[in-house]
Amino acid sequence: MEEVDHLAPERITAEFDVEAMKIVWAGSRRAFEIADRMSRLVASDPEFRKDNRTVLGRKELFRNSLRKAGHAWKRINELRLTEEESSMLRFFVDEPAYVDLHWGMFVPAIKGQGTDEQQKKWLSLAYKMQIIGCYAQTELGHGSNVQGLETTATFDPNTDEFIIHSPTLTSSKWWPGGLGKVSTHAVVYARLITDGQDYGVHGFIVQLRSLDDHLPLPGITVGDIGTKFGNGAYNTMDNGVLQFDHVRIPRDQMLMRLSQVTKEGKYIHSDVPRQLVYGTMVYVRQTIVADASRALSRAVCIAVRYSAVRRQFGSQNGGPETQVIDYKTQQSRLFPLLASAYAFRFVGNWLKWLYTDVTQRLQAGDFATLPEVHACTAGLKSLTTSVTADGIEECRKLCGGHGYLCSSGLPELFAVYVPACTYEGDNVVLLLQVARFLMKTVSQLGSGTKPTGAAAYIGKAEYLLQCKCNVQKAEDWLNPSVILEAFEARAVRLAVICAQNISKASSPEEGFLELSADLVEAAIAHCELIIVSKFIDKVQQDMEGQGIKEQLQILCNIYALSLLHKHLGDFLTTNCINPTQGALANEQLRALYTQVRPNAVSLVDAFNYTDHYLSSALGRYDGNVYPKLYEEAWKEPLNDSVLPDGYHEYIRPLLKQQLRLSRL
Amino acid sequence: MEEVDHLAPERITAEFDVEAMKIVWAGSRRAFEIADRMSRLVASDPEFRKDNRTVLGRKELFRNSLRKAGHAWKRINELRLTEEESSMLRFFVDEPAYVDLHWGMFVPAIKGQGTDEQQKKWLSLAYKMQIIGCYAQTELGHGSNVQGLETTATFDPNTDEFIIHSPTLTSSKWWPGGLGKVSTHAVVYARLITDGQDYGVHGFIVQLRSLDDHLPLPGITVGDIGTKFGNGAYNTMDNGVLQFDHVRIPRDQMLMRLSQVTKEGKYIHSDVPRQLVYGTMVYVRQTIVADASRALSRAVCIAVRYSAVRRQFGSQNGGPETQVIDYKTQQSRLFPLLASAYAFRFVGNWLKWLYTDVTQRLQAGDFATLPEVHACTAGLKSLTTSVTADGIEECRKLCGGHGYLCSSGLPELFAVYVPACTYEGDNVVLLLQVARFLMKTVSQLGSGTKPTGAAAYIGKAEYLLQCKCNVQKAEDWLNPSVILEAFEARAVRLAVICAQNISKASSPEEGFLELSADLVEAAIAHCELIIVSKFIDKVQQDMEGQGIKEQLQILCNIYALSLLHKHLGDFLTTNCINPTQGALANEQLRALYTQVRPNAVSLVDAFNYTDHYLSSALGRYDGNVYPKLYEEAWKEPLNDSVLPDGYHEYIRPLLKQQLRLSRL
Repeated sequence: MEEVDHLAPERITAEFDVEAMKIVWAGSRRAFEIADRMSRLVASDPEFRKDNRTVLGRKELFRNSLRKAGHAWKRINELRLTEEESSMLRFFVDEPAYVDLHWGMFVPAIKGQGTDEQQKKWLSLAYKMQIIGCYAQTELGHGSNVQGLETTATFDPNTDEFIIHSPTLTSSKWWPGGLGKVSTHAVVYARLITDGQDYGVHGFIVQLRSLDDHLPLPGITVGDIGTKFGNGAYNTMDNGVLQFDHVRIPRDQMLMRLSQVTKEGKYIHSDVPRQLVYGTMVYVRQTIVADASRALSRAVCIAVRYSAVRRQFGSQNGGPETQVIDYKTQQSRLFPLLASAYAFRFVGNWLKWLYTDVTQRLQAGDFATLPEVHACTAGLKSLTTSVTADGIEECRKLCGGHGYLCSSGLPELFAVYVPACTYEGDNVVLLLQVARFLMKTVSQLGSGTKPTGAAAYIGKAEYLLQCKCNVQKAEDWLNPSVILEAFEARAVRLAVICAQNISKASSPEEGFLELSADLVEAAIAHCELIIVSKFIDKVQQDMEGQGIKEQLQILCNIYALSLLHKHLGDFLTTNCINPTQGALANEQLRALYTQVRPNAVSLVDAFNYTDHYLSSALGRYDGNVYPKLYEEAWKEPLNDSVLPDGYHEYIRPLLKQQLRLSRL
Repeated sequence: MEEVDHLAPERITAEFDVEAMKIVWAGSRRAFEIADRMSRLVASDPEFRKDNRTVLGRKELFRNSLRKAGHAWKRINELRLTEEESSMLRFFVDEPAYVDLHWGMFVPAIKGQGTDEQQKKWLSLAYKMQIIGCYAQTELGHGSNVQGLETTATFDPNTDEFIIHSPTLTSSKWWPGGLGKVSTHAVVYARLITDGQDYGVHGFIVQLRSLDDHLPLPGITVGDIGTKFGNGAYNTMDNGVLQFDHVRIPRDQMLMRLSQVTKEGKYIHSDVPRQLVYGTMVYVRQTIVADASRALSRAVCIAVRYSAVRRQFGSQNGGPETQVIDYKTQQSRLFPLLASAYAFRFVGNWLKWLYTDVTQRLQAGDFATLPEVHACTAGLKSLTTSVTADGIEECRKLCGGHGYLCSSGLPELFAVYVPACTYEGDNVVLLLQVARFLMKTVSQLGSGTKPTGAAAYIGKAEYLLQCKCNVQKAEDWLNPSVILEAFEARAVRLAVICAQNISKASSPEEGFLELSADLVEAAIAHCELIIVSKFIDKVQQDMEGQGIKEQLQILCNIYALSLLHKHLGDFLTTNCINPTQGALANEQLRALYTQVRPNAVSLVDAFNYTDHYLSSALGRYDGNVYPKLYEEAWKEPLNDSVLPDGYHEYIRPLLKQQLRLSRL
């Protein structure tokens, strides 16, 4: 293929310094350089090719994924990569695999819940991958409600062992990644029973397979749970099923940092505060928000570039048709997603800071901010993953028919992403946790307890319940404090209305259940406010680079005003704004789309994604879409032969009327 | 597996006659009996099993699909099935295949655009499947804008032939189903050029492959365009790419019903009115609406049954946990979709009547109702397919983690359904056509032209622009005329606001482009009103069967009030209702969810779907979900061996530290 850049005219119109924006997106020059180096390393290594992923059968696909994971480990060691670099390299390999669970769940679980002694023993094996571990929590019949798990760990003082057992079919461990075929060990969550008493769910380290021949140990039934959504997607992962038939493990394989069982079978709590566990949760959810911004920006990058290449209708006097990115219908769906990608990136970076802050406080014995931080990360995990999942699919639709081809990269991106809405807390369950926090905060308003952090605005409830928006012309909506106040007022008013309606019910709990759909909406309002306010904060920071601030200001306004339009009912029903102001916001939004249009391609270039990472014929940097789509088609296995398998058996007899045609 | 019915307690609580509802759903006793018989025929024939679909590679999958299509044809002939029965049988085979295009597009194109002579010749071959045809319209660079197609058909008077040619890469035919590997013939759309003049796009019958050896004829390059979204899904279809290198066809293979080229190369119109072509479009889109109600109801059936089986949280004193269908968060997402499935079914049946009506008018030379009918079917195609695609994915999410497994049936249902949003008119393009119709109708209001049919309400604009909703308590929202007026007022007001804003622009066309996102919202309001009004009409008809009317009334109200809540911004911003009335509607909605709850499982039983058709471990009639999920897992090819392929090469060396670990 000749070298072309069909998108060059789009890049010329940029009104900002793209290289500087790359640094802003990455978070720092150092972060940019690591990501840039690791993505190129992966893209240039033929062992990491992924263009054949959607045509492989499950076994080939899985074998291929094992090969890549092994090769990545080899490269990590050969190049002596740091932990940060290793994690980036694995990210750009872009294929779910057992290593994700080993590094992302098994190791952190031992770190968080193991004693110093346990950490010393198990982590040294895990760090060298002399053992491979997974995280066995969910069961066939039990997901969100961890306290409902059925697997038992019964202490036997005679042998100083726990007996791990699956008493029912529904107690089978189900879903853990890396479990089905690979892991040698697992952190297993089970009900601790000692001296006839059930002490609830605790974690245990259980060996599953022999380190000699990899065969499951006696009493262990283990396998893969079957094909999942998408062609390649998560089918590179061996999500597994696991049953125990009275499997015995030494007592010291219970993770004993927070509580322990003595030789005599006595259950005792340690003096380590339990709140520390929530610190880990904040950490994991913060990484999920960061992943959301990456996945959404990846889809948006593909859709923006293709929308600039694709032309349809509007030809005048035989000239070229209109680029679809110039249609307001396309802009009104695409640009809010572009703005959301930036918004999620910035709130993700802020969450990283928040995690550091709360960790320091916890270590100093200050637990005061924890509930607010916990609600904040739970809510942001829920909101960003839901919007990202829907946003990827919206980007696919914005690419028209061609978005339906695997060679567009979008079907796989969607299929591999959607589990994020379910794992690490189902998104609706998490929003209800946020709602509970909001109801508690509102109920304490009179008591002198001041809401903190991202919930501090609730302390201004008295003002926010009666303030009036004074927007009189469209440009008034460009004022950040006007936007912020409208979002704060909406969030507070929705929360207060819910609290009032709950107080009318026969009991608070019944009221909460009855109003839970409304509570979810109040929780969303709270989370959207946080994202809007962190975006506004970001724009107000000092930033180097020509035009950077202006572009981010535009994106910030698009993010906020498109949300206002989407949730217009919320703002109007709570009298935060009036219908005229709603119409003015919409008018301003259209003007903002026009402003962002000449910068759109450069704003996605700033993500600095390689063509390897995007893995999309539609999203190529050079915009050379059609020859690439055409080339990809001929790689399809069905095209290996001119006559399809089955022609002689099932097509020819039909055409030759060798089927009995009694009816005709 | 022992015989159980875990859902028996759910079925006991039904407050209506399920058998009678089955007839209502099917449309008539006769329609019910045909569907019931055909679905059982397919379900009981092992040749039609489909549980292995997601684990087959593309070649095996395609071969398998050819086998089923051949077997279906054999059974159709052996059993001497009628056209209606055959089409039902193919529907329940539930696998996209070349026959869909042969019967659904190739045959109708010849019927609609061929002369009597052409029909006689080609249809007799097609009816016996002595030739297999497809419909080659879209090109790599051209989709929605049919007038932009590049393929040429140049008349050569010397030989009395057309020369079919692909002048560019982007003119390659791209997407036609059945083209890639199977079809012997195609209706090809190309620019007709004669005597140096371009007469625009016309249809031609072109033979692609030899009837002897199935090899592509000289000058024809043809193949499959590659893997599409999902595992099995649309990958059973050979969507194809096709290029012509000066392929010659006899002049009489131009479809000449509406216009023709003479031996001398003169282009002439026939006296057949062109509007007849729109009749075919109405027909095809009407079938798409019917398919939408089937696809949505299938997903809803799975999600409702599983939501009644699945329990999570809420256990009291060690008792069972709460069924997730009892949570208001689940109800507020699931029950509007259940109501939508019924709503789409009824509007689909009405469209069938509308098609008959317009056909009779067209044949009598009455073209007056055509624009309104065309807008109506275009809009309903767009709205129902978009809601169905999103609704299937919502049902998948409502099934939690297990919905992500292919054995849930939902990932495949989604992947196979989403193209409906693009084919036969991109959904956004169609809504803009509706919007154009609305703007024209509004602009003619003063002129004495009375809007007809589903747009008749616009004739009441004067009243609807100033009427006030007089709801004062929640139950007032149960009055159908109150609901209807609110929806009519919303639709008229949004359309009038758009028309006013357009009139402020420098030209109507520029105004239309600038406001197109708002116009799409106005078009949606128009379409939703149609569906609401047809549901209300349905409920007011006489219907036999205990409790039927009451249940449909509840569903109709849920449909309308959940839309009102979703689009609250529309209703408030146009002052159709006030915030208090919005809150009352929401309160009434919650009460309706409680009413439908004990009937939910029986309302999906009324769809009369077999377990074969549902193809879902979660949606089984007997609710025996967990053993079935467990059983399905062990069929996964990865479980064929205890050690996975690749263990010796890629896992063992890692565990045994045979990789260089220079870093550690």
